[in-house]
Amino acid sequence: MSRIAYVNGRYVPHRAARVHVEDRGFQFADAVYEVVAIENGVFIDEGLHLARLHRSLAALCMASPMSDAALRAVLREVVRRNGVAEGIVYLQVTRGTAPRDFAFPAAARPSLVVTARRKRLVDPRLVAEGVRVITVPDIRWGRPDIKSVSLLPNALGKQQAKEAGAFEAWQVDREGNVTEGTSSNAWIIAPTGELVTRQADRGILNGVTRTGLMHLIETLQLRVLERPFSVAEAKAAREAFLTSASNFLVPVVRIDDTSIGGGVPGPVTRRLIEAYASYAAAGGADRA
Amino acid sequence: MSRIAYVNGRYVPHRAARVHVEDRGFQFADAVYEVVAIENGVFIDEGLHLARLHRSLAALCMASPMSDAALRAVLREVVRRNGVAEGIVYLQVTRGTAPRDFAFPAAARPSLVVTARRKRLVDPRLVAEGVRVITVPDIRWGRPDIKSVSLLPNALGKQQAKEAGAFEAWQVDREGNVTEGTSSNAWIIAPTGELVTRQADRGILNGVTRTGLMHLIETLQLRVLERPFSVAEAKAAREAFLTSASNFLVPVVRIDDTSIGGGVPGPVTRRLIEAYASYAAAGGADRA
Repeated sequence: MSRIAYVNGRYVPHRAARVHVEDRGFQFADAVYEVVAIENGVFIDEGLHLARLHRSLAALCMASPMSDAALRAVLREVVRRNGVAEGIVYLQVTRGTAPRDFAFPAAARPSLVVTARRKRLVDPRLVAEGVRVITVPDIRWGRPDIKSVSLLPNALGKQQAKEAGAFEAWQVDREGNVTEGTSSNAWIIAPTGELVTRQADRGILNGVTRTGLMHLIETLQLRVLERPFSVAEAKAAREAFLTSASNFLVPVVRIDDTSIGGGVPGPVTRRLIEAYASYAAAGGADRA
Repeated sequence: MSRIAYVNGRYVPHRAARVHVEDRGFQFADAVYEVVAIENGVFIDEGLHLARLHRSLAALCMASPMSDAALRAVLREVVRRNGVAEGIVYLQVTRGTAPRDFAFPAAARPSLVVTARRKRLVDPRLVAEGVRVITVPDIRWGRPDIKSVSLLPNALGKQQAKEAGAFEAWQVDREGNVTEGTSSNAWIIAPTGELVTRQADRGILNGVTRTGLMHLIETLQLRVLERPFSVAEAKAAREAFLTSASNFLVPVVRIDDTSIGGGVPGPVTRRLIEAYASYAAAGGADRA
């Protein structure tokens, strides 16, 4: 658990970390966020996370609460105060606090909340055994590419997965294609050997781990196709896995009731897990 | 402005009304709300609002923070402490505060926040002159029938309306039909004389004012068709108006750049505004 949080200019004990009830993050989901992983004290792909934060803010015409240099300093201070060598730092920016009205307030300063906690990033059991995912309809709003806190459908999907004894829910659009997980990107390896993952258009959140892995795939001279893939295609895949900033790569060995790759993590997935571990240990693309 | 708010068991000064940063309302939009209008100290259709609250809570498998009797008492106390004879009381229930995780927390108590403020419900100028609405794509999630705080697309739509000098944005689905406004239901009066408004299925939030008006329409022996209507049909309508708990009925005299009914509020709309005023003054269906 985060022991010390940063809230609008102050470092406060976790229990005292509070925002106003008229903060637009609370009343309108008018807020964006990022989660950055930390390994051996090193922030993984912090630069890509900050770039995506700016993309989200710009898409919502929201101001940044401070300069990137100041933000990086706050992130470091929260991580330091929580003694996190391996774990995650969470930051949320909202449009600010103002009397409740749907339209943007004329004069509100953006809110910034930062928390950090220790977390084992790579769970050896998950990597060794793989996980099951279920499929659910994608009922999110039209702009899941913006990393907003409009996460109610994601929470409902994850809960459905949990109740089904699965690790994640892969969301499926009206055309029957997988978009992504509720908090991770979805990948398959086709019978022909290519990696397939949905193109990063307005239909998915372009994961930073996804982006990092794209670099690696190129380095490893593997072939990746960015295109939609159907549930049926996923169930017939040779291998499957998911990516997220806080879990890196996790093999998927079962989709709904269909076993993938004989029910064990496949060789390409294992190779990518190793390659990503080295990439992450070096801080990601920031230091590459 | 609300001077005194109720937050999780306490009546606190507005400036001190705060929730934890890990309240799921702040991080996941995992919360529902209601806005009840008050006129001459009378709560309008409080019973319908509470019934809808329970419907929203049930749809999200969320517990109620307290009994209806207790909730009614809190609403009254907040209204009393803020000296609201005419205005609105806002209540928000969240799934509670818990360490951040998409799936539902095993043991979290629902949060309850209540605020109230004075507001003139019927603006005579709006009623006399009518308002303009613009049309925007409906990009909300798949369950707008649940009154959740997943309101980012609504906020964006309302802001777009404001920037266009309009009062509201009517959201349009993929088939080209109007669903509803960002914080109001949409109605037209067809050239044939029937009232037309979208059926209250999963595509719209079934407004309490909409429900109240349905009762009245029956009483007045007018004919209403609950069905989708296109933007083109709306622009060719004889009259148009919108309904919401905090504004009652507001005539719409312009949709995008098309003038409706000669650009002035029509006779049926005016008749309904009068009828609804009497209905509201009596407390709505609760006392009917």
